[in-house]
Amino acid sequence: MKYVYFFNKGESEGDTSIKSLIGGKGANLAEMAGLGIPVPPGFTLSTEVCRYYNEHALTYPESLKPEVEDHLRRLERATGRVFGDRSNPLLVSVRSGAAVSMPGMMDTVLNLGLTDETVAGLIAKTGNERFAYDSYRRLVQMYGDVVLGMQPEDESEIDPFEEILDNLKEKKGVELDTDLTAADLKGLVESFKRAIEERLGVSFPQDPNEQLWGAITAVFSSWNNQRAAKYRELEGITGLIGTAVNVQAMVFGNMGAGCGTGVAFTRNPATGENEFYGEYLMNAQGEDVVAGIRTPLPISNLRDEMPRIYDELVAIRTRLEEHYRDMQDIEFTIEENVLYMLQTRNGKRTAFSWLRSQVEMVAEGLISEEEAIRRVPATEFAKLFAPILDQADIDAKKMSPITTALNASPGGACGQIVFSAGKAEEWAAAGKAVILVRIETSPEDIGGMSVAKGILTARGGMTSHAAVVARGMGCPCIAGAGDLQIDYSAKQMTVNGQVIEQGAIIAIDGFTGKVYNGGITVKPSEIVQVLTGEMTAADSLLYQHYSTFMGWADRFRTLAVRTNADTPHDAAIAIRFGAEGIGLCRTEHMFFAGERIIAVREMILADDEAGRREPLTSKLLPIQRSDFAGIFRAMNGLPVTIRLLDPPLHEFLPHDAAGQREVADVMGVSPERIKEKVDALHEFNPMLGHRGCRLGITYPEISEMQVRAIMEAACTVHKEGTKVQPEIMIPLVGHVKELALQRELSVRIAEEVLTENGLSKEEIPYLVGTMIEVPRAAVTADEIASEAEFFSFGTNDLTQMGCGFSRDDAGTFLQEYIRKGIYAHDPFEVLDRAGIGKFVQIACNLGRKARPGIKLGICGEHGGEPNSISFCHETGLDYVSCSPYRVPIARLAAAQAALAE
Amino acid sequence: MKYVYFFNKGESEGDTSIKSLIGGKGANLAEMAGLGIPVPPGFTLSTEVCRYYNEHALTYPESLKPEVEDHLRRLERATGRVFGDRSNPLLVSVRSGAAVSMPGMMDTVLNLGLTDETVAGLIAKTGNERFAYDSYRRLVQMYGDVVLGMQPEDESEIDPFEEILDNLKEKKGVELDTDLTAADLKGLVESFKRAIEERLGVSFPQDPNEQLWGAITAVFSSWNNQRAAKYRELEGITGLIGTAVNVQAMVFGNMGAGCGTGVAFTRNPATGENEFYGEYLMNAQGEDVVAGIRTPLPISNLRDEMPRIYDELVAIRTRLEEHYRDMQDIEFTIEENVLYMLQTRNGKRTAFSWLRSQVEMVAEGLISEEEAIRRVPATEFAKLFAPILDQADIDAKKMSPITTALNASPGGACGQIVFSAGKAEEWAAAGKAVILVRIETSPEDIGGMSVAKGILTARGGMTSHAAVVARGMGCPCIAGAGDLQIDYSAKQMTVNGQVIEQGAIIAIDGFTGKVYNGGITVKPSEIVQVLTGEMTAADSLLYQHYSTFMGWADRFRTLAVRTNADTPHDAAIAIRFGAEGIGLCRTEHMFFAGERIIAVREMILADDEAGRREPLTSKLLPIQRSDFAGIFRAMNGLPVTIRLLDPPLHEFLPHDAAGQREVADVMGVSPERIKEKVDALHEFNPMLGHRGCRLGITYPEISEMQVRAIMEAACTVHKEGTKVQPEIMIPLVGHVKELALQRELSVRIAEEVLTENGLSKEEIPYLVGTMIEVPRAAVTADEIASEAEFFSFGTNDLTQMGCGFSRDDAGTFLQEYIRKGIYAHDPFEVLDRAGIGKFVQIACNLGRKARPGIKLGICGEHGGEPNSISFCHETGLDYVSCSPYRVPIARLAAAQAALAE
Repeated sequence: MKYVYFFNKGESEGDTSIKSLIGGKGANLAEMAGLGIPVPPGFTLSTEVCRYYNEHALTYPESLKPEVEDHLRRLERATGRVFGDRSNPLLVSVRSGAAVSMPGMMDTVLNLGLTDETVAGLIAKTGNERFAYDSYRRLVQMYGDVVLGMQPEDESEIDPFEEILDNLKEKKGVELDTDLTAADLKGLVESFKRAIEERLGVSFPQDPNEQLWGAITAVFSSWNNQRAAKYRELEGITGLIGTAVNVQAMVFGNMGAGCGTGVAFTRNPATGENEFYGEYLMNAQGEDVVAGIRTPLPISNLRDEMPRIYDELVAIRTRLEEHYRDMQDIEFTIEENVLYMLQTRNGKRTAFSWLRSQVEMVAEGLISEEEAIRRVPATEFAKLFAPILDQADIDAKKMSPITTALNASPGGACGQIVFSAGKAEEWAAAGKAVILVRIETSPEDIGGMSVAKGILTARGGMTSHAAVVARGMGCPCIAGAGDLQIDYSAKQMTVNGQVIEQGAIIAIDGFTGKVYNGGITVKPSEIVQVLTGEMTAADSLLYQHYSTFMGWADRFRTLAVRTNADTPHDAAIAIRFGAEGIGLCRTEHMFFAGERIIAVREMILADDEAGRREPLTSKLLPIQRSDFAGIFRAMNGLPVTIRLLDPPLHEFLPHDAAGQREVADVMGVSPERIKEKVDALHEFNPMLGHRGCRLGITYPEISEMQVRAIMEAACTVHKEGTKVQPEIMIPLVGHVKELALQRELSVRIAEEVLTENGLSKEEIPYLVGTMIEVPRAAVTADEIASEAEFFSFGTNDLTQMGCGFSRDDAGTFLQEYIRKGIYAHDPFEVLDRAGIGKFVQIACNLGRKARPGIKLGICGEHGGEPNSISFCHETGLDYVSCSPYRVPIARLAAAQAALAE
Repeated sequence: MKYVYFFNKGESEGDTSIKSLIGGKGANLAEMAGLGIPVPPGFTLSTEVCRYYNEHALTYPESLKPEVEDHLRRLERATGRVFGDRSNPLLVSVRSGAAVSMPGMMDTVLNLGLTDETVAGLIAKTGNERFAYDSYRRLVQMYGDVVLGMQPEDESEIDPFEEILDNLKEKKGVELDTDLTAADLKGLVESFKRAIEERLGVSFPQDPNEQLWGAITAVFSSWNNQRAAKYRELEGITGLIGTAVNVQAMVFGNMGAGCGTGVAFTRNPATGENEFYGEYLMNAQGEDVVAGIRTPLPISNLRDEMPRIYDELVAIRTRLEEHYRDMQDIEFTIEENVLYMLQTRNGKRTAFSWLRSQVEMVAEGLISEEEAIRRVPATEFAKLFAPILDQADIDAKKMSPITTALNASPGGACGQIVFSAGKAEEWAAAGKAVILVRIETSPEDIGGMSVAKGILTARGGMTSHAAVVARGMGCPCIAGAGDLQIDYSAKQMTVNGQVIEQGAIIAIDGFTGKVYNGGITVKPSEIVQVLTGEMTAADSLLYQHYSTFMGWADRFRTLAVRTNADTPHDAAIAIRFGAEGIGLCRTEHMFFAGERIIAVREMILADDEAGRREPLTSKLLPIQRSDFAGIFRAMNGLPVTIRLLDPPLHEFLPHDAAGQREVADVMGVSPERIKEKVDALHEFNPMLGHRGCRLGITYPEISEMQVRAIMEAACTVHKEGTKVQPEIMIPLVGHVKELALQRELSVRIAEEVLTENGLSKEEIPYLVGTMIEVPRAAVTADEIASEAEFFSFGTNDLTQMGCGFSRDDAGTFLQEYIRKGIYAHDPFEVLDRAGIGKFVQIACNLGRKARPGIKLGICGEHGGEPNSISFCHETGLDYVSCSPYRVPIARLAAAQAALAE
């Protein structure tokens, strides 16, 4: 088996077609080299090595070592340098690179090959003693940290090496690393080596081969470190066998004048605007830019500083976009006025950037409409509708920003500030909105970042850890706010003289980079404002792109998209988002507000049918009728699927003594009476209890009232001149006879109401159908179809009953199941195709066999999840139904599914 | 459509082949008439009329009336009498008769056709005025009760007509009805008619046709009365369209000397002995025998009293047994020395009688072994193993019976006496063992009878209501205990001077008819005693019959029968009952006793894996190993399927504060700690929570311990020279990867233990398989079969998850579902073939496709239920597994299923 792949201009052994084998970084280096772009040569140890390593008690295949040695010789030939040579040493970097990018999650070691002996060769070769020792001290530091495991001894210590460095700077009275002399740095190497020996009892290795294997092993090991595992879990990355390791000849951006390093995007990753967008630092190594320790300069400055290099970069930018036909995220280093590309990959970007870049690339003729639709991750799409700070509120409160910094991730957020990820998690768990404020973030902060409403950092640029992660999470972020002085121990920050304590409320605008001291109303996104008429389409470029893009999506998709809406208000929003009907109107939500709940409770407390009919008829009927009429008007002729009462009755009664006393007072009965009823209604497994159509069968009067309300509302709205298409949906059917009974009742009442109103079924073409959410219903769907004019898959309950775990209780093991790969995704988020999907397929096949042309839809939460929507398309459903804000996502996902065929 | 069917000697329009149309009684009357047996002629209104009546707002088809009139004319021709004629009146009975016998549940009216005018004709015809008026007063009484609805006005009144009768007898100073004169009875007719007019405001009809239609309608209506509906529910009678109505010429057993009436069985319905067995009353109507008002004479007395009639009866007995080839239950009337058969039907009998009669009929050459096996209702079979009173205890306590009466239904019972059905239900619900004591029982008492441990009545014979119902229920019963004086209002009874209060403990022996005042140990049945060696087979005819019969069953069946057993003791019992292996050994039951629960709790309370491993390894491992060794020894080489831990961990901790304090003391931790853990383990839907293999996956150390205990025990017992076949069963698998993980673990540990013991898989051929109880597992059974060497269907949980209702919570609607015919049976009792059965079929098909020859079994409670066993046979399972006492039932049901093919 071949384990190692070489890359160099014109002699690459790989390319992006074997990305899963050599990782994204390795594949793109090989591909760029193949394109004739200047890339330092190197070789890649494949992901198969990582797999072998983890499956064989952390050992390597026998053939690996000779293969690496062969490639090292080849690299020496390509560079004209020799690894470990005293006069002309080859230095290499060792970096991770999995098939899916996991920025900053795994380890890297630079400058490998430097020893007390070879450093002399580097000095001789470069004539730059200071640079050579700076490189060496960086190697010792990184190697000590990554390979040997130097860690802070307690919380007060930041980093053992940084502390030595800080002490030295203090002693020398200098502020910047660059103020240290060659001798200082040489002394620092010795101090670092001593610290390692003292603390760990081992020496920094003087054998370059030992260094190389140490670093390779550290990178392979880092695949399974805690933060990488957590990142994969959060990002839903599964199915990878490990990381590849790239060993590449070093080029130096920190050799003095004419040297520098930078990262850039071929388009703006926040907005998508077609501009060359990036940052660089002169006389620095790449890690300095990404780590956010120094705040870099915008890439446009390079045009003046190094015009030839800038032009070369711009040409490469064009070449890469033309080759990859997508926005690239690149890293480069300038070594003594020579440009080297260290990396290219498809750029991570905001949803805004996705939308604009793709729409513009179509306009530029770079890609087709189909490609634009295929590419935009539908899951990202929700972020277009993310809230923004309300300018009117800012104006009214006459608020000015206390500082403005980098608009690192879009969206407005408002909340209480905290200074540690742990506190963020704690407060968020307690229901507080928090803004996480850090000097800079690190991978350890992932947990806190994922629960924060917004992130604010004092250091770092657009490509800093905080910025990259926040954009990925769709979390508003402002980075590099240098005005902030943060005191972790005092739990406060000072901004231009204002002291702001932990817990104080601030607001941040991730679109503009403005930070406000105080609360600001957060309001809907620009697209939502256009949709609701608060802004005109002409004023919003974003909306125009959105509209163009959705037009394409609608042209490609075949699946209809409906919405889950319980009120005229939600129905109206959904229509604006493009909903083509209501797939699920839950009537029980209408039972809770105000007077209604009292009537519902009267009904529940009644001793007999007559006692139940009274509040149903005199109180709830008129209320529901008016609710339904409002919804029918809002939907203006589109079909509306209304589910009859579903939850168990005990949900309408308070379970605590105080609540029961209160209800007793209102109802004029004794609290004991309420408690008795609550106790009588208690269930051991409420999921599997007296609910759904079981209620309608034991209390037919409830179904009668609801069907009457639906049909009376339909008649009223029909008479107003609006078309109405009610679809009466019977929930939780498991047996065809349950449906038969409820269908008979529904048709009887519906015909009664039509007759009373002098209307016919031709005028109000109502349907009666059922949810398919009980496993038994799925496997007997042929029988059930004989009584159902439509099926709507309730995949939430179908997952609970089909998999046999309740959503509320699965927390104790489901995360572990996903970690162990039993389920690839949380089956409540992404439809479990192999299992629950099979129920859906069985039911569709049986249903269509018994009733050709039966209408099939899905109304579980999976109806708004792209992977699940794709399944629905493949299975041939007629529609999906999802919450109003997810309708555009569903439209896009449906188009993608159609194009994937 | 033909609605009415005539029957008469040689001119019957029907027979038993159309039983569902003309009911059991009508079909048998027609069939007997066809055989030339003397039957009073008549005609039957079919069950289609009943269906029409109930489906058409209680009206009849138009063609019915002329059809009835035609048949009435034909009946007049057959009898030579005329309906409503003043001089030669035809009198008829109107009786119900469904396709399935429902004794006493529906209404009957006799002597129809008598009016103030026709009574004179009857007097003229019979010359017996007293008889004529007695018949007339009976008609008015029955008609008033059944058709017009005379009811007691309050609880103090027994029956309005009986009260008038009692008053008259008191006034006349006579004790028996027979002491009343013709004039008395004539006066009684007038009093009865007046009472009807006063209380109901209607007159007793003087038009015989009005009487006839009134009675017909009353019988059709009684199909849906409460007690008939309740009876059908209790007996599981479904699928009938209604009752037929038989209109038959009256013959009179109460016309004086040479008259009589009786009921008999062609064999003993209690023991099955081949003897003519029955009772008669001279000068009485049939209702007098059945109602148990007078205690009748044994049939053998008739040999001396009316030898010719007796011989004729015996000849008919032989004819009927030869024709029907089964034990018959017959009714006859002797009118002026002429014998008429009023009914024959297959006799209801005890399980003992079933067994003996069928075994002996095979010996007599009357039926084949196959027929014997086919016929015995497997559900009845359990009663063979019913407990009996312990003679040793009776001897030790020197107890003598306080009275001896009719041994109406076999079995011993001991409990507290109650005098009303309502009290019986109340006390039984409170967990008390009750003996229901009544003067006589009536259909209204069904509820109380069904919960009583035993029934004792003061009046009535072997065919009284109490006797018939008790035998059907398998409830011990003693009837006709004339020594009992029961005072309902004082809630006490006096027996030969001893006063016994409500709540006192008595014991009854339904085999012998003996009643004891005081508690007696109830012990196992005779068969169980032989099986356990407490009695020899030679001493037990019952056991010999059982053994012969089971030998036939085992020859016919192809399905293996295993048992569900958790202890060596249960395993040993099951072996005696013929179990061929253990299909389900639940390991959690082993976790509860004594020291074990402490170790289990230590494990649950541990904070980490090491903390859990300690009690698992040091305490639970040796205990489980020894348990399993005991079971392996008991099973002596038969396969033993052991299920790994299944219930959620919170089941092992107390949920109340007192229990928690106690545990805290024993464990040496704070009660808060226990409460915290209980709270942490709380689940909203425990059925769908952290249990089954989910435990083994999150805590692999538990599975490791259990597999080690199983395999170490297997090695130990193997080394003792006993073959061992352990089958390790992983519970609650929903996804193949769950099984893969647990299988890998199981095989790893198993091989470890085998190696440690120097043994191989050839020597201990262990299997690893899974329960199929999660719906997802059923539809992905092909994937699951790739990791499973066997499937065992857990149909309890499969029903709960598949139907989406929990057994604990379904009570609120499931009975109503069965009443409404949604499910024909409780799906937890009888496997729901159309739904849950479909899951089983899908899983079998997929499983066999992926792994031909995969071993398939069932271990849910359905494994002991005959209908479900028949499904398992049809589906081609390899075995069923059930509780030890149900093993013989399963063997029989399996044979019946095989013969049904």
